[in-house]
Amino acid sequence: MLNESSAYSLGIDIGGTKISTAVVNIKGEIITKTRIPTNAEKGVSEMVKRVVNAAEKTLQSSNLEKNKICGVGIGVPGPVDYEKGVLIFAPNLSGWRNVPFKKMIQQRINLPVYLENDANAAALGEKLFGSGRDVNNLVYITISTGIGAGVIINGKLYQGSTGTAGEVGHMTIDINGPLCECGNRGCFEALASGNAVAREMREMLSSGKSSVITKWVEEIKEVKAEHVFKAAREGDVSAKKIVEKTCRYLAAGIGNVINLLNPELIIIGGGVSNAWDVIRNPVMKELKKRVFSPNLDAVKVVCSHMGDDIGVLGAAALGFMNSKNFHDRCF
Amino acid sequence: MLNESSAYSLGIDIGGTKISTAVVNIKGEIITKTRIPTNAEKGVSEMVKRVVNAAEKTLQSSNLEKNKICGVGIGVPGPVDYEKGVLIFAPNLSGWRNVPFKKMIQQRINLPVYLENDANAAALGEKLFGSGRDVNNLVYITISTGIGAGVIINGKLYQGSTGTAGEVGHMTIDINGPLCECGNRGCFEALASGNAVAREMREMLSSGKSSVITKWVEEIKEVKAEHVFKAAREGDVSAKKIVEKTCRYLAAGIGNVINLLNPELIIIGGGVSNAWDVIRNPVMKELKKRVFSPNLDAVKVVCSHMGDDIGVLGAAALGFMNSKNFHDRCF
Repeated sequence: MLNESSAYSLGIDIGGTKISTAVVNIKGEIITKTRIPTNAEKGVSEMVKRVVNAAEKTLQSSNLEKNKICGVGIGVPGPVDYEKGVLIFAPNLSGWRNVPFKKMIQQRINLPVYLENDANAAALGEKLFGSGRDVNNLVYITISTGIGAGVIINGKLYQGSTGTAGEVGHMTIDINGPLCECGNRGCFEALASGNAVAREMREMLSSGKSSVITKWVEEIKEVKAEHVFKAAREGDVSAKKIVEKTCRYLAAGIGNVINLLNPELIIIGGGVSNAWDVIRNPVMKELKKRVFSPNLDAVKVVCSHMGDDIGVLGAAALGFMNSKNFHDRCF
Repeated sequence: MLNESSAYSLGIDIGGTKISTAVVNIKGEIITKTRIPTNAEKGVSEMVKRVVNAAEKTLQSSNLEKNKICGVGIGVPGPVDYEKGVLIFAPNLSGWRNVPFKKMIQQRINLPVYLENDANAAALGEKLFGSGRDVNNLVYITISTGIGAGVIINGKLYQGSTGTAGEVGHMTIDINGPLCECGNRGCFEALASGNAVAREMREMLSSGKSSVITKWVEEIKEVKAEHVFKAAREGDVSAKKIVEKTCRYLAAGIGNVINLLNPELIIIGGGVSNAWDVIRNPVMKELKKRVFSPNLDAVKVVCSHMGDDIGVLGAAALGFMNSKNFHDRCF
């Protein structure tokens, strides 16, 4: 039986550059946390070894006995075969294919392990610990270098028929638009991701347009989306133009999700959500134009409040959500 | 207890020009059917009276006693307030607002009545009687004068948080595209509906382009989408160009749904689906470009086989699906 004293979960968030592990209680409070570099180029086995070491260390520093942990959730940056517990493909992890993470980690860590795509895990994290707590139908949209989503329907994660629901980044929003890395034209991700924002500014600068960013270039080395948003906050005209254009695209993509799913809540996460202060109003204004009005009236669009911890909290949510006792108790 | 001998439902499909009523058995076979004109301009009460008369007549000619009917399903062309059984708004029914159809019909017909948006009812019809019989996650997309959809998730109709899920017609697929009747630019419906196809041809003809359709104009009076598809079948160059362009838009919109929902099945219905022989291959070719490949591998895209009966079969499915005994037995 799961009770308050045994209600902990171990979350592991495997990202392209870093891996976070954390022991989390049932309220979503992080008890202990560890962060290590991913170093995917050193291979899968080496990485799994380090992940398990980091997880054991995190557990030790929490001073909790292993039997207090109801499960281990792992968020990975790619599609997952749920039956087999296999990461199918991860462009951000040296292009790894068919990695049986669940089995590899479970046999070393000796606790039930659950593997999930990171955007799906984040949606679960928001449902269990965040703004989605009392909401049955919500979509978590992560806008970072790429764009992905996790969909909660009737209070449960909707994975789709083969586990790859939520591929919002490749929705067409501008059929004749710029090429996306997927080979298609006008994908949401090609127009409104952090990469797209940075690309727009680099193109503007190389075409000779002026921006306060030119003064920062020596220090920042590479122009990133965060610099564009910072410049827009400072009133930079070029940056403000890019932000305005991006918000129009953001609203088109987010609006498509609202029109199709009529959710109660959209939660925006990922790097671009750090610019929520700059993008909120123009996105909302454009959504009013683009969304069927009953669907707009029904939805709240908010920014995630979990910051960088969303990955590891989402992973920990997996551990809880899959625990049968927890499920019986909470749903 | 629901058994074979009592397993009948009465479906009522209220459309902009005609109303169909049918007694349907549990296999989706139509026992008797009646069709009357809608004449919405004569007002709600007059119409309800005629609907009930038509329903009673349909029931009589089926030679079934009333207690063999487990429920009455009504499909209406607009969003529905499910709790109240009210049609919220129907542009195609003289712009009627807040019509309490459920109550009005139930008190006259003395059987349990269920009200549903027509695209949602059609999705249920496909799930219960059609291609969706053994499928848990499917989307029925109706492409007619407008474009709408009904979404089945985990075997059940997904209505969204306020009953207006499936508004795919107003997804943005060409952010700088032509104006839609909703006031927005580049909606799926503005680019790929039957109305859009007909508009394209009328514009082509008035710009002086040649088409076999010019020879038909006297007879057909107004150019409709069906004429464009007929001309394309006959090899007409102008019509073929419009069909090619339309299929690209169709794939963008259908592709957005597949990317987001990873369904097992997409069923295309509505008037434009009568041109499935012409549009199937180009749509499938374009989907291959636009859909995340695991999602494309997972989905079948088919044409509805129910023809004009989908409306009344969907409505009848409502009667069955809401019958508690039926639900316990079948799910």
